[in-house]
Amino acid sequence: MRYRALAAEFIGTFMLVASVLGAALFSFPIAGIVGVALSIGFSVMAMIFAVGYISGGHFNPAVTLGLVAGRRFAASEAPAYILAQCLGGIAAAIVFYVIASGKSGGFEVGNFASNMYGGEGYSMLSAFIIEVVLTGLFIFIIMGVTGPRAPAGFAAIAIGLTLSAIHLMAIPVDNASVNPARSLATAVIAMGEPLAQLWLFWVAPILGGVLGGLLGRCLIDNND
Amino acid sequence: MRYRALAAEFIGTFMLVASVLGAALFSFPIAGIVGVALSIGFSVMAMIFAVGYISGGHFNPAVTLGLVAGRRFAASEAPAYILAQCLGGIAAAIVFYVIASGKSGGFEVGNFASNMYGGEGYSMLSAFIIEVVLTGLFIFIIMGVTGPRAPAGFAAIAIGLTLSAIHLMAIPVDNASVNPARSLATAVIAMGEPLAQLWLFWVAPILGGVLGGLLGRCLIDNND
Amino acid sequence: MRYRALAAEFIGTFMLVASVLGAALFSFPIAGIVGVALSIGFSVMAMIFAVGYISGGHFNPAVTLGLVAGRRFAASEAPAYILAQCLGGIAAAIVFYVIASGKSGGFEVGNFASNMYGGEGYSMLSAFIIEVVLTGLFIFIIMGVTGPRAPAGFAAIAIGLTLSAIHLMAIPVDNASVNPARSLATAVIAMGEPLAQLWLFWVAPILGGVLGGLLGRCLIDNND
Amino acid sequence: MRYRALAAEFIGTFMLVASVLGAALFSFPIAGIVGVALSIGFSVMAMIFAVGYISGGHFNPAVTLGLVAGRRFAASEAPAYILAQCLGGIAAAIVFYVIASGKSGGFEVGNFASNMYGGEGYSMLSAFIIEVVLTGLFIFIIMGVTGPRAPAGFAAIAIGLTLSAIHLMAIPVDNASVNPARSLATAVIAMGEPLAQLWLFWVAPILGGVLGGLLGRCLIDNND
Repeated sequence: MRYRALAAEFIGTFMLVASVLGAALFSFPIAGIVGVALSIGFSVMAMIFAVGYISGGHFNPAVTLGLVAGRRFAASEAPAYILAQCLGGIAAAIVFYVIASGKSGGFEVGNFASNMYGGEGYSMLSAFIIEVVLTGLFIFIIMGVTGPRAPAGFAAIAIGLTLSAIHLMAIPVDNASVNPARSLATAVIAMGEPLAQLWLFWVAPILGGVLGGLLGRCLIDNND
Repeated sequence: MRYRALAAEFIGTFMLVASVLGAALFSFPIAGIVGVALSIGFSVMAMIFAVGYISGGHFNPAVTLGLVAGRRFAASEAPAYILAQCLGGIAAAIVFYVIASGKSGGFEVGNFASNMYGGEGYSMLSAFIIEVVLTGLFIFIIMGVTGPRAPAGFAAIAIGLTLSAIHLMAIPVDNASVNPARSLATAVIAMGEPLAQLWLFWVAPILGGVLGGLLGRCLIDNND
Repeated sequence: MRYRALAAEFIGTFMLVASVLGAALFSFPIAGIVGVALSIGFSVMAMIFAVGYISGGHFNPAVTLGLVAGRRFAASEAPAYILAQCLGGIAAAIVFYVIASGKSGGFEVGNFASNMYGGEGYSMLSAFIIEVVLTGLFIFIIMGVTGPRAPAGFAAIAIGLTLSAIHLMAIPVDNASVNPARSLATAVIAMGEPLAQLWLFWVAPILGGVLGGLLGRCLIDNND
Repeated sequence: MRYRALAAEFIGTFMLVASVLGAALFSFPIAGIVGVALSIGFSVMAMIFAVGYISGGHFNPAVTLGLVAGRRFAASEAPAYILAQCLGGIAAAIVFYVIASGKSGGFEVGNFASNMYGGEGYSMLSAFIIEVVLTGLFIFIIMGVTGPRAPAGFAAIAIGLTLSAIHLMAIPVDNASVNPARSLATAVIAMGEPLAQLWLFWVAPILGGVLGGLLGRCLIDNND
């Protein structure tokens, strides 16, 4: 039982990171932000439908820890879940690195679609705030759509398309994380600056996720 | 109970305005009208799934007043709802103003994605008509999809994607309001012309919403 | 009862034509084919959810006649339905003509997003074939998703998004009709060539619709 | 009964190939990768809703063989299904070739939106890996969303939108197959290089599909 849940988290996070990298590495200048946003949103929606009843369909350490804060998930299960998510994400990053390497004329790894702040883009503070706020809203929505009074079956649609909306809102700021496992997976391939900045994309989404879980607990689960 | 509904309206409207500002301020020249339309549509869909069973999921004074006209919502509750919506929208506008301010090279507030008429765009009359017509259709659809004979659970999908369609139809005309709280939230940051024109984006959507609610009452609720 | 169904068809077709004109007249060079396709698909989906239980949610003479051929709709009701659809479409075309006229610097009506063949585009034969084939598939899908064994409630999603796909496939060929009322509504504003070519956008979609209805009757309704 | 299932597979694969060709041949430079991805995803979703209860809604030899490997489909039925899929796809390719031929100034068939590797794009190895990986994930998701514990009715949404995500990820690499019948249909019109490379778009998707089916069998069907 537990082995199945961890395998589901591994595969789901593999698909999540693959959906970002496929759209961002190969299609980006053509399909644009809308392409990346729909790719990740549709993929996560489908994976929640496919394995959500096995593992809950987190695919994201900030979701796991946010649901712990919201008392929907046992803290004792969290470390194994997060490990499975990170390994699944890294596996996808390696596979897509190999695929990208087959480009005619060669492939430059660059930042490998990593999450980043500063430089020509937005400041560290901007990235921090947007990650806290959007991850908080994301986990709050997850709490709401999986609550006992929400219409059954629709949660995967709401969660996947929220992730699409979040990417439409945040890609130009810091390439949109809201997911430490996704940030880790691309940073370990890119190395350098993305790895040095990785701390923010663990701290801010997890902080946001915990706040969103607590808010959901107040507003949704105490709804009597 | 009542406090929870107002908190839900605050958070939902926060997300609605955030979804417009994120896509319009950061992604606009790249992700375009389609990006803004999907961002707001998906966000509102998700928030209705998340908190619709707490507050009804209006997030919009024109929806609240349209449902009063359609006898689906108590007039006595409307003022508090509208206040919560306006405060939630303004809170999002402030947060995204702070995020935008972190742009390398500085950020010019400009019209801050406000709703506007005239100038190089479309006339005041064009903006007035399109706001009345589209808000009327929007509230009519809300009446229909939340009626007793509509398929249960799907209302949030219909309402969210209608909002996407409305934005695809109206962004070039007046940046698409159909929501006085959204117009207020960006105008109070932009000041100047957007604030001077704000009256239209309260009068026209509310007029349209009331007409849509009355039409829905005639056609849908008297369906016997 | 019958009055309500006709009013529902009027309003639904109003929204359908408005969704095409809003996206095509105002947003077209920016939001592109994807914008028009999503605008019409989401609008029709929402209107079927909103009033489908009143009128069936046709909003299209080719759907009405295709369902007559498929023995899902009474032939005696068809003329009034088609009249209501045409009037609703024309009303939307007039309203959006007025809105468009408020453009700073003036508005040239041109072809007013009408369906057309020949000229710099595709031949009459190409337009005829694609209208027959896509309308046939459209009505076949409608027969399938509203049949007794299809999952309840999902029909509006399938029908709306099929219409989005059809527009992604056919806009560059003839601006995508599959709906005589939509073609009529824009042609009566544009006059000239669009009106002279209107016959094709009645004959081909209706022929396709009837074939799709018959195919659906064979394959879906005799499924025993 | 069996005749109906084969007719459903023929029509469904006709629509699938039509949705790719319409968007890729006519709309491509304008609607882009997002247009093709949504066209195929929405079309397949609609066709699964329409005829899924007749044939299962495979429309793809890799799905049929993957479900055989996952013990969800009888091997004895597979050859007739695959034949119906190939014929349906080829029929669509012929019809859209005729439509495309009506283009003013003439139509060059070129690669006819075929799946290809090498040349100016990505290597044979890259194409092979991405087809195995994405088809594997696709069939795994199909196993999950059609399993006994998945929410009923939503499978078509998950499957269709997964196909959209796959196209957003893989079009720039090899034009995205994950479906041998789709690759065959365009290659027999294009001839030349696409036909010479067709082997890969049968071997890799089927290999991926079988692996995905086995993985689904382990993880989903033995879930006790």
